[in-house]
Amino acid sequence: MSVADKFARLGTDNAPGQEARQQGGNIHNLMRGDAIPGTPVDFSHGDVDAFAPPANAFDFFAEGVSRGARQAYTEYRGAGAIRNDMAGKLAAFTGSPVDAADGMILTPGTQGALFLAVASVVGRGDKVAIVQPDYFANRKLVEFFEGEVVPVRIGYETAETEAGLDLDQLEDAFRQGAKVFVFSNPNNPTGVVYSEAEIRSIAELANRYGAVVIADQLYSRLRYSDASYTHLRASGIDPDKVVTIMGPSKTESLSGYRLGVAFGAPRLVGRMEKLQAIVSLRAAGYNQAVLQAWFSEPEGWMEERIRQHQAIRDDLLRILRAIDGVSASTPRAGSYLFPRIPSLSLEPVGFVKVLRLQAGVTVTPGTEFSPHCADSVRLNFSQDRAAAVAAVERMAELIERYRR
Amino acid sequence: MSVADKFARLGTDNAPGQEARQQGGNIHNLMRGDAIPGTPVDFSHGDVDAFAPPANAFDFFAEGVSRGARQAYTEYRGAGAIRNDMAGKLAAFTGSPVDAADGMILTPGTQGALFLAVASVVGRGDKVAIVQPDYFANRKLVEFFEGEVVPVRIGYETAETEAGLDLDQLEDAFRQGAKVFVFSNPNNPTGVVYSEAEIRSIAELANRYGAVVIADQLYSRLRYSDASYTHLRASGIDPDKVVTIMGPSKTESLSGYRLGVAFGAPRLVGRMEKLQAIVSLRAAGYNQAVLQAWFSEPEGWMEERIRQHQAIRDDLLRILRAIDGVSASTPRAGSYLFPRIPSLSLEPVGFVKVLRLQAGVTVTPGTEFSPHCADSVRLNFSQDRAAAVAAVERMAELIERYRR
Repeated sequence: MSVADKFARLGTDNAPGQEARQQGGNIHNLMRGDAIPGTPVDFSHGDVDAFAPPANAFDFFAEGVSRGARQAYTEYRGAGAIRNDMAGKLAAFTGSPVDAADGMILTPGTQGALFLAVASVVGRGDKVAIVQPDYFANRKLVEFFEGEVVPVRIGYETAETEAGLDLDQLEDAFRQGAKVFVFSNPNNPTGVVYSEAEIRSIAELANRYGAVVIADQLYSRLRYSDASYTHLRASGIDPDKVVTIMGPSKTESLSGYRLGVAFGAPRLVGRMEKLQAIVSLRAAGYNQAVLQAWFSEPEGWMEERIRQHQAIRDDLLRILRAIDGVSASTPRAGSYLFPRIPSLSLEPVGFVKVLRLQAGVTVTPGTEFSPHCADSVRLNFSQDRAAAVAAVERMAELIERYRR
Repeated sequence: MSVADKFARLGTDNAPGQEARQQGGNIHNLMRGDAIPGTPVDFSHGDVDAFAPPANAFDFFAEGVSRGARQAYTEYRGAGAIRNDMAGKLAAFTGSPVDAADGMILTPGTQGALFLAVASVVGRGDKVAIVQPDYFANRKLVEFFEGEVVPVRIGYETAETEAGLDLDQLEDAFRQGAKVFVFSNPNNPTGVVYSEAEIRSIAELANRYGAVVIADQLYSRLRYSDASYTHLRASGIDPDKVVTIMGPSKTESLSGYRLGVAFGAPRLVGRMEKLQAIVSLRAAGYNQAVLQAWFSEPEGWMEERIRQHQAIRDDLLRILRAIDGVSASTPRAGSYLFPRIPSLSLEPVGFVKVLRLQAGVTVTPGTEFSPHCADSVRLNFSQDRAAAVAAVERMAELIERYRR
């Protein structure tokens, strides 16, 4: 594939956060009625003004700056002392030891970790099992490295205490030669959580077929009252075949610092570090110090954050479910809603534009997550509660306005 | 090429900053005499404790944090307001307009910019002209994307008011089909600066053969009294065929914030942003705000910094040139020395290890920069002056000790 073709395929036009770069096109000809006033809400990402980072994060940064050269120039995989500190916390959280020296790398955001992890195992023509729907970068990364996506569905709309993973499809993918499986748990964009049985089956299948699994657990701390959670890395998978990715960017509102961590097989982490050396050298040195605030939040901080998100989730679900033709399943974790919108007079991507232009409501089109989810949109509901409620009410009004 | 082969090729064992991960091996059997006491000096990078960042950098960061969501989540190419501010400053510095909207991207360090720029033009089998010696990542990046390196030499050891670029070799490379030329100016590791005639010839050849040029100008502000400097982008090159890379990480000691900027052809910057969306999303949001301190240093700040570096350069050159068999040309810009070491009882890489273990002096082996520079080492002399002088004196002592 030529470089030009590769980049032609790599779209970001509808990627979250890039809406400001969209050309309006002729959407104005199709608009009905006037704009609806209200506080704009950008559901394409969480609002760190509504949910602030832990108070001590900035202090750790300032302390990092004052440490000077030692903190500015770390090993490419990150400062040893910080990795040591993190390893204990991540081992306790995930239920399996973490090797600070050789089995962990700090990265610029979890995106950085995901890029390096996929690059470390996927080459031209390699088959990679990818969940549909799942985080859009999974597919794009496989395509960028000229791998071949083998989709595996989840029945997220009816699943309650599981993700609804089609295990036969996953085994088929491995049987066809897929040597890598990439998935997010909790699932982004649907908020379903894989059951213990599902996670154990993934581990067994990966072991049986010798596949590497990249588990993106970015939202695994933000779990609602009814959710149980199983960590793949503590579920019998060959430790040489799994890399787990986490980061403090979302739940903890530390996105502005761009920090992520990948931990698992030293063989793969070693490759990731070699690549990081030519991609970005390291996660910004001073920023690494902020990781000390992670998993060290004040007593009750996380519980309160979960309670507040659950309240917003329930408010928005109530409004969405009252709209004729809209269906929305209940996320068990994370801060994403993924409602299905009825067929309207505009194509779904057009409706998403109109929603932004007429109601100041930014959402992400479902096609970013799966070719089969064109009629869904993703909302990150980590927002100011009142503003989010009003925004979804405006969305309801526009759905009525654009019915055929 | 398999993924495993690709990573086997991608070495970082001797990369600057990674020395802590080296295995000692049997070097201890070859050591002569005792350790020489003295303040350890890590010449693999500059010392931001010796040369501190501008005082207001941290304030801009803190202000960025206080701006909250707006600064945490920017477009992938960086915050519009900051790009606007930077565009004017970079246009003034380089002598040619900069398109803030479509022709500029902020990246995690200049390394991030270089990665994206090379990725945006180099694919499997593409020939890429690379200077020897030059920054080690240039070659590694081309190899990672499975391009083919076509080396072009510079006669840096005898050049005085130029880099000594072999223009016939460069034209040969283009004639053989190289569609990309990557070079650093000032050259890393030698500190030579390309003359106006050389830069104009590069522009003419690139135009004639339709090649893209990636110009890494990381050190272009730190120029000594006798150096004139010509910006490629203002020297007649087709603007659709050039990307310039700069950053405040080195001269300005802002490395701990990991910031870089690439500016030039919108077509290529567009690709770079698409790729950044899956590599790291964006340069850390809060960190971007620190760019406001760049090109806004207090009156006389840069002149003083240059004067101090020139003094260290001259001290170290004096000591090095007094060693029998050592030759060292005078860097016209930047903070690297690249002396040639005489043949000793140890292989050059072994001597580099012994230097660190016995004298606390860390340098980077010349093979990182060119296969033909095994007998040279690179020193970043942006260090505490007295400590650097003492360290190079210890190096002199060890060279005597290890003569055959």
